[in-house]
Amino acid sequence: MSSLEEKTLSTEKIFTGKIISLQVDEVELPNGKTSKRELIKHPGAVAVIAVTPDHKIVMVEQYRKALERTIVEIPAGKLEQGEKPEICAARELEEETGYVCAKMEWLTSFYTSPGFADELVHIYVATGLTKKEDAAETDEDEFVHLIEITLEEAVELVKGQKIYDAKTAFAVQYLQLQKAMGRK
Amino acid sequence: MSSLEEKTLSTEKIFTGKIISLQVDEVELPNGKTSKRELIKHPGAVAVIAVTPDHKIVMVEQYRKALERTIVEIPAGKLEQGEKPEICAARELEEETGYVCAKMEWLTSFYTSPGFADELVHIYVATGLTKKEDAAETDEDEFVHLIEITLEEAVELVKGQKIYDAKTAFAVQYLQLQKAMGRK
Repeated sequence: MSSLEEKTLSTEKIFTGKIISLQVDEVELPNGKTSKRELIKHPGAVAVIAVTPDHKIVMVEQYRKALERTIVEIPAGKLEQGEKPEICAARELEEETGYVCAKMEWLTSFYTSPGFADELVHIYVATGLTKKEDAAETDEDEFVHLIEITLEEAVELVKGQKIYDAKTAFAVQYLQLQKAMGRK
Repeated sequence: MSSLEEKTLSTEKIFTGKIISLQVDEVELPNGKTSKRELIKHPGAVAVIAVTPDHKIVMVEQYRKALERTIVEIPAGKLEQGEKPEICAARELEEETGYVCAKMEWLTSFYTSPGFADELVHIYVATGLTKKEDAAETDEDEFVHLIEITLEEAVELVKGQKIYDAKTAFAVQYLQLQKAMGRK
């Protein structure tokens, strides 16, 4: 047992929703004292870095109720129960943008808010994009606008806080790094 | 009103904790239908990219109850009520690592989980680091181990999923980009 570890003494389930659930755990700290941890359980998500053959980044504009505003993000969505991340990535890309890809490669995964949530986002890179003529229907509760922008435009959207979330900030920086390393 | 916007019809407060609160909003969608949004309110946080004069990145190893494991992160913490982010950044850096800095510059800010939470993380870059002899006490509920690593070691920790959260993945990639652009 690591000297940093916290032992669960009890778990109080507060809420179980469609997407998240909330519990409060009482824990024993490394010094023997007790404390409470407010914890959100989330099924996990995927996000897709997709660049078209003419070097445009595929993004979606979407209203986020949690933020009470519209932001621009890379295509993303939560994992359905039992769904493999790479299947989810292809599904979300097609549902949100109408694009299908020849290759979907895992890049990295990270927890978004380790202080209170277990949401793990898997980041994929989609290449060989082609637009489907008869694009699949989007989720009935989901309304997004497709936009396609250059890397320079994306960097400006970060500065202007229209791109304003962790996974998309990471994606833009990834493409900047690829360019700086001469890989694009 | 944007065509993507969702109108709040009602708000049900479910939980108010020490760090997060949870509410479920009923919303009217752009197509006139209604849906529910599960929303976490969070006070916001800061995180600090701090590199020592001998080019080591200052990190902390910390047990995260939400993940049930220990991960390696850049120094970070949540904003106290009314606290300015740059003050919080200096406080967290000193509390978690014992370092004080000559300069604390804002780099960017991003929402960590826009699908369900309003947590906004402000990322700072600290330079001119010096170690305080009589380092301030850490929070009584917080146990962290200071580690100082090279960029190459950090990249390995990302691959090995010991660095496993969005802000730290962003920070490591930022330092890679600075290096690739010859700025370090």
